[in-house]
Amino acid sequence: MRYWYRCSECGKEFEMTPELMLCPDCSAQQQPDEPLRGVLEVDFEGVLPEDFEPIDFLPVEKAYFPAIPVGNTPLWEPERLRNTLNFPNLYLKDDAANPTGSLKDRASYLVAAFARKHQIQDIVLASTGNAGSSMAGVGAAAGLNVTLFLPKTAPPAKMVQALQYGANLIRVDGNYDLAYDLSMEYSKEHGGLSRNTAHSPLTIEGKKTVALEIYQQLGKRCPDYVFVSVGDGVILGGLYKGFRDLVNVGLLDKVPVVYAVQAEGSSAIYRALHNDGRFGPPIGSTTIADSISVDVPRNGYYACKQIREHNGQCITVSDDAIIQAQKQLSTAAGLFAEPAAATSFAGFLQVKADLPPDATIVLLLTGNGLKDIASAMKGVKIPE
Amino acid sequence: MRYWYRCSECGKEFEMTPELMLCPDCSAQQQPDEPLRGVLEVDFEGVLPEDFEPIDFLPVEKAYFPAIPVGNTPLWEPERLRNTLNFPNLYLKDDAANPTGSLKDRASYLVAAFARKHQIQDIVLASTGNAGSSMAGVGAAAGLNVTLFLPKTAPPAKMVQALQYGANLIRVDGNYDLAYDLSMEYSKEHGGLSRNTAHSPLTIEGKKTVALEIYQQLGKRCPDYVFVSVGDGVILGGLYKGFRDLVNVGLLDKVPVVYAVQAEGSSAIYRALHNDGRFGPPIGSTTIADSISVDVPRNGYYACKQIREHNGQCITVSDDAIIQAQKQLSTAAGLFAEPAAATSFAGFLQVKADLPPDATIVLLLTGNGLKDIASAMKGVKIPE
Repeated sequence: MRYWYRCSECGKEFEMTPELMLCPDCSAQQQPDEPLRGVLEVDFEGVLPEDFEPIDFLPVEKAYFPAIPVGNTPLWEPERLRNTLNFPNLYLKDDAANPTGSLKDRASYLVAAFARKHQIQDIVLASTGNAGSSMAGVGAAAGLNVTLFLPKTAPPAKMVQALQYGANLIRVDGNYDLAYDLSMEYSKEHGGLSRNTAHSPLTIEGKKTVALEIYQQLGKRCPDYVFVSVGDGVILGGLYKGFRDLVNVGLLDKVPVVYAVQAEGSSAIYRALHNDGRFGPPIGSTTIADSISVDVPRNGYYACKQIREHNGQCITVSDDAIIQAQKQLSTAAGLFAEPAAATSFAGFLQVKADLPPDATIVLLLTGNGLKDIASAMKGVKIPE
Repeated sequence: MRYWYRCSECGKEFEMTPELMLCPDCSAQQQPDEPLRGVLEVDFEGVLPEDFEPIDFLPVEKAYFPAIPVGNTPLWEPERLRNTLNFPNLYLKDDAANPTGSLKDRASYLVAAFARKHQIQDIVLASTGNAGSSMAGVGAAAGLNVTLFLPKTAPPAKMVQALQYGANLIRVDGNYDLAYDLSMEYSKEHGGLSRNTAHSPLTIEGKKTVALEIYQQLGKRCPDYVFVSVGDGVILGGLYKGFRDLVNVGLLDKVPVVYAVQAEGSSAIYRALHNDGRFGPPIGSTTIADSISVDVPRNGYYACKQIREHNGQCITVSDDAIIQAQKQLSTAAGLFAEPAAATSFAGFLQVKADLPPDATIVLLLTGNGLKDIASAMKGVKIPE
């Protein structure tokens, strides 16, 4: 298999080098406070065997991946939840079973392999928490130095996790967007490979394995609907990329209908879709779902394009609905998801009346509830 | 396959009924403040196919198990840790990848199946935290009511987890031993199936699947050494039971050498082994490894018997060694384990000079680091 980068806006092609992050032409038109311009996609040419391993469909040779079991997360068939909701073909894809407890490990895994291939020792990133603790953990397994910019408001568990893995942590007195800017300045000055989400094309590409696994776990089928929570739009991008690659390689004939679910208090992509794809000035985000709380969604243009081209849907849910969805998922299925993860379930609950009951539906659950105990406390009453 | 109970002390056999917990004869000799007398084991007769699924080797029919993906946790091959320590055949069995984040799910899974088979709706237990949140989660998937007695000192994450899953939580102003006594009184008065560890024979039996998986993941081989942290001795009992069952069914010719690792501040089994198997008056336990902090190890007699009969070793490690082991596991392998889990690694580090470097060694890691952030903070420095 041969791989290269292609600009998701102008279509120009580039060799995959560690220096290249965005399309030089399109990113030159970058305006302040808007999503990234010139996000690169990995394109490919070649034949994929029908019984492929997801890792064989990533653009770095297997030998470079670190020894940490990322992916192969379970696809649950939640009997009680199916019965309660009357959706007999509902599935839960539980990415909390990844080594650091979130889907972000899929991106970190590919970034780590790419760094090893190119003998790069230092990784730099900003994060709301999960991407940071993920890169720290996967980086530890790979023997890489990870420098992480984290907002001071990140849940303590995510910060402690990153420190345990040995990351060089810089706590930022501000939001994710400020942490992002500082991390970019840092890597400009000190070098190191950026793993900033969307900025590094490998973050989208790495996350595509979740779609490949869903396809395989369903017995080489495409689900009818997938629900995914959306902050900056990179998991959404990776999900589409996986299904599209399966179509391009001839193993699928369609991509599923994706429901992109945003928190009402952090809904920039939803607003842009209702504004002809234009992103207005950023609005300060406030939601309990910290992992999807962003003012400027870095992958916003790319995400909007994917949703439009593939007849996706974008909806918003309230924080109350997220807290209730988190509780219902725990009590009816035994799956304790963090608020940002339960957001996909909240979206499903909101629109389920519009869906055919016999449809094959996958809820993507992106992070472990143990990562944010303070939020989970809002959904329960502690007895004396 | 046919299954029945056999008393681990007198050898008497019994039918597997929900009412029976301990051997009536041996438990009649129970003294206050000593480990349980008359712990029952599951015995069997029949043929196991070579390519069996672990669930097929449990004494409840598959159809009764709830829809929650327990077990099949990854066996890591930690490249960097192997190189650093110079043990090229070192493996990490990461049971934090279970749905509720600990090995306890294996026992809860079998207890839930047994309850469903016998149409029992209520489960009662005491716990230091993991068994309780586990039974709550697996019980939620199974549609069972779970009443849980938890010491107030249990890490908040474990309590919140149990509440999220919808357990009826009773917080006990005292230690695990008091919680245990209260739970026994409660079930005597209100009924319900006890899932108290060692008291329910299914807790030992359910945990044996971890040994079956290790055997399969190593390519149908027995490791030379397994390191396991030990509090009440039930995980140890389950581990031995799995390997012994593989010997009894003719798939293995030996059980591994098991290193039972206790915290210095909670070492009742270690002390008994050095006192001709006699348990003295309980000593108040104090250790950072909350999951293995018990004054009276309920499965103490059984655990001592297993260690002696199979040439096992029992050692103790300090809390400092546990904190350091937890940190090293995170930084060198990318595996963030809770203190009680990292205790097995601390034990390995203590005795590794005595082990042949080419031995196949499995460290059993029983719970997720995210379950106890306060303890993990002791191993890291939080930057300003």
